[in-house]
Amino acid sequence: MENTLKGSCIIGQSGGPTAVINASAFGVIRTALDADCITKVYGAANGIKGVLNDRLYVMDEEDPHELELLKNTPSSELGSVRYKIADPDKDDTDYKRILEIFKKYDVRYFFYNGGNDSMDTCEKISRYMKNVGYECRVMGVPKTIDNDLYGTDHCPGFGSAAKYIATSCMEVSKDARVYDTGMITVIEIMGRHAGWLAGSAALASYCGSGPDLVYLPEVNFDYEKFCADVIEIYKKQGSVLVAVSEGIHDSNGKFISEYGSNLAKEKDAFGHAQLGGLAVQLADEMKRRTGAKVRGIELSLLQRCGAHLASGTDLNEAVLAGKTAVEAAINGESGKMVAFEREIINGEYSCKTKLLPLESVANLEKKVPLDWITPEGNNVTKEFIDYALPLIQGQPDRPVENSLPRYARLKKVLAK
Amino acid sequence: MENTLKGSCIIGQSGGPTAVINASAFGVIRTALDADCITKVYGAANGIKGVLNDRLYVMDEEDPHELELLKNTPSSELGSVRYKIADPDKDDTDYKRILEIFKKYDVRYFFYNGGNDSMDTCEKISRYMKNVGYECRVMGVPKTIDNDLYGTDHCPGFGSAAKYIATSCMEVSKDARVYDTGMITVIEIMGRHAGWLAGSAALASYCGSGPDLVYLPEVNFDYEKFCADVIEIYKKQGSVLVAVSEGIHDSNGKFISEYGSNLAKEKDAFGHAQLGGLAVQLADEMKRRTGAKVRGIELSLLQRCGAHLASGTDLNEAVLAGKTAVEAAINGESGKMVAFEREIINGEYSCKTKLLPLESVANLEKKVPLDWITPEGNNVTKEFIDYALPLIQGQPDRPVENSLPRYARLKKVLAK
Repeated sequence: MENTLKGSCIIGQSGGPTAVINASAFGVIRTALDADCITKVYGAANGIKGVLNDRLYVMDEEDPHELELLKNTPSSELGSVRYKIADPDKDDTDYKRILEIFKKYDVRYFFYNGGNDSMDTCEKISRYMKNVGYECRVMGVPKTIDNDLYGTDHCPGFGSAAKYIATSCMEVSKDARVYDTGMITVIEIMGRHAGWLAGSAALASYCGSGPDLVYLPEVNFDYEKFCADVIEIYKKQGSVLVAVSEGIHDSNGKFISEYGSNLAKEKDAFGHAQLGGLAVQLADEMKRRTGAKVRGIELSLLQRCGAHLASGTDLNEAVLAGKTAVEAAINGESGKMVAFEREIINGEYSCKTKLLPLESVANLEKKVPLDWITPEGNNVTKEFIDYALPLIQGQPDRPVENSLPRYARLKKVLAK
Repeated sequence: MENTLKGSCIIGQSGGPTAVINASAFGVIRTALDADCITKVYGAANGIKGVLNDRLYVMDEEDPHELELLKNTPSSELGSVRYKIADPDKDDTDYKRILEIFKKYDVRYFFYNGGNDSMDTCEKISRYMKNVGYECRVMGVPKTIDNDLYGTDHCPGFGSAAKYIATSCMEVSKDARVYDTGMITVIEIMGRHAGWLAGSAALASYCGSGPDLVYLPEVNFDYEKFCADVIEIYKKQGSVLVAVSEGIHDSNGKFISEYGSNLAKEKDAFGHAQLGGLAVQLADEMKRRTGAKVRGIELSLLQRCGAHLASGTDLNEAVLAGKTAVEAAINGESGKMVAFEREIINGEYSCKTKLLPLESVANLEKKVPLDWITPEGNNVTKEFIDYALPLIQGQPDRPVENSLPRYARLKKVLAK
């Protein structure tokens, strides 16, 4: 019987952290600790690197209350990693080592929580274990503020980042319009190739006060058109608030952030260019052209770790994703990623889970549909708002101490 | 009888906005609307400029529920201004105009909500009106995130900004330590000459997770010592989080932000240099010296408009300051600023108001005591924590719509 595969499990966290990635970890850990067939629950220190380096924390040793506080704790509490694992058909060194560790700790369940690149890692491990005949159920738990995972309606992490962005844009929108002498403010938002986060800035405008213009990386950025857009509003209103994705690029695919910067651009382990400095650059250009007072604001790491503004919907779904992965694995599933399906029943949003083969999601990107961007390319449409608004709803309880967030304090006892 | 001075009142907002300046405006407006001797309540559009330009909003026309929502609304809802008014003994043009408007609307009470520069404006108007024999009670309501107003234990606006900074530093501290490959993160915090806000970053460390190093502008910044401090922690821990005030300067008084930047620095209407870009500059230097991955984060406008993280203590005190100003004026006071006195009764913080002559506070700055900064000059002491921690306590109700902040929607009917 498949249901009775007995053994221990590992949960690993990977890629850029989010406000709710630990909520998914909690969903996995809590469900696994409560499952009879799972004998021990290990948390890998820094994702797959923790497996390779034999650095596993024993979750069974943790205080249940502290584990529960993971729901309140931003970033990846077990530590994260950006490590591109080789194709097992070309170089199986890492996989041999993983197998060795799996055998050492009798690991029969492996849960990996991450984005596109992590699903790729997950898929390769699953494939390798199958090929060598080691029975281990491998499940991917989705995570990314970028919301660009393929095959799922949305990703855990996105709703909370979107809520942080919308709230911050609402507040800055008030601040940036306070003087009658005019000001042009540019806010730079994460999202290399997909504009889900930048588009979320428009939720602020829809709900009362937000950016006048929003630029997504799905369409080419025309610098002259942008300047004309801004100047038109500046002349009319005096103050302008603009939200731009870090990944906006011209028709040749060149990032706008590379136009004016004289800093050498670096690339991360996956070959992605590191972007930044765009807001200040665009603001400076607008100053040159208009003489206006300007501000460039980069939301930077703040937008992905803003747990105090987590969306209740996102938080609950993040826990659900982790829980579903464990339950599915216990029921015999493997090589799958948990995904979300949206249901609108009598106008009310609800979300159910489904499973997708890892190979159907790994390394793919889901972008904002072009018809959710206005024909002028400087805002999103009502369809985008209708999509994103349900995902930011709800204010979870946020445990505090001295009115500051109270995060989980794990013992992190290393397995021997 | 002094108590029966009948006439209308004006409330003006001035200087950089805060998360709770509108709470003080609410305190003034609500108390004034409820006072029998105050016949009409006007809100000046953009502070003293609104008086000079005869642009006054009739607060009596506003929905009481919307006025109440001012407590939830960041920035200066009536509009702010940075306008340096002349000395009345040298040039009385503006004052003649102000008197004309006061007479036109029978203004007998004038409340001005702002920081150092605004108290200067307030003092000059008070003096002028006295000299020309026009009976008008002029009261200053303190406001500044910088917390540098003289003679008061603390200022409305500071506690909320401090809470925003501490919470954000706590979150970033989690995010910035997530990889085992190390990272040096520099967070730049407002505060030209006073380090109250930068010091507040240390509340995060005290309460669990925050910056390793904190640099205030009260002491000279030694660049080489700073680099050595960072490198020492980097070698020990792998990741380093640094908080710096925008106003850190060398022993010659030169701002560190001016070291590396090739952008022409501007000055604002008061002759203050506009600072910025410091975090990225320091982070880049650390990259050059260590090869580490680095991040520079500027909290920018976010820290002063973060109303969703307002401190309940700060919010209540901001309302109290406005209310006290009106009550004192009705009781015959004039030419004063409302100030706070801290009382610790059985270890419990409480705050009571007092009145200070405007001339004793205008244009002065209160800095962090030098003995609240560590001898190494790279952090604050427990005395600072004990001072600041009570000011960030309490989470007020934050009205929301669609899970985003619901701000006051005023009609802003102009007086004719």
